Amino acid sequence: MSDADLARTPEPPYYAVIFASIRTGQDDAGYATAADRMMELASEQPGYLGVDSVRDATGVGITVSYWSSETAIAAWRRNAEHTLAREQGRKNWYGAYELRVAKVERAYGFRR
Amino acid sequence: MSDADLARTPEPPYYAVIFASIRTGQDDAGYATAADRMMELASEQPGYLGVDSVRDATGVGITVSYWSSETAIAAWRRNAEHTLAREQGRKNWYGAYELRVAKVERAYGFRR
Repeated sequence: MSDADLARTPEPPYYAVIFASIRTGQDDAGYATAADRMMELASEQPGYLGVDSVRDATGVGITVSYWSSETAIAAWRRNAEHTLAREQGRKNWYGAYELRVAKVERAYGFRR
Repeated sequence: MSDADLARTPEPPYYAVIFASIRTGQDDAGYATAADRMMELASEQPGYLGVDSVRDATGVGITVSYWSSETAIAAWRRNAEHTLAREQGRKNWYGAYELRVAKVERAYGFRR
């Protein structure tokens, strides 16, 4: 079993930003640096509750970040460094993406 | 760029089932067969809108399936073959998982 862990979030309701993407394969180093930085920066924002993120060898990735409110999501979207990273994403890093904002209504987990 | 594609869903609102998991590393063959079968079976259910699914080499995976309504999600949950697979998941395949049911309120995408 992996050493990885999953995000531990409070009882619903809260919000999820579901970001599914396909990498272009361009600029792996720049992408990796920016992805790490965005994870760090997101975790410092008010209302951030956690994140789960996976990318496979074919370049398909899903990142789900959890937030206390729509206000928190809007503030993170306006963050200047995040805005620059999104521009780079459209220019270089992503062949396609879909972003969905969703209200988590119920949740349950299992741990061995 | 990958040949993979992302789910194409209708305009919100609709529902997302966000399933984040960590594999035990046990029974890879049985897991792969069941995972393929569940993807096929889910796609045949009323109200199914699509799925995005990624698992990385460390065994962490995120599968997000999209549904027209909570009723559709509840019916899929009651499916007998799906129920058996979930039992196998807790017994053998997953070290941990978190399942969240969320209402997608807005969405946008980008394609090169």
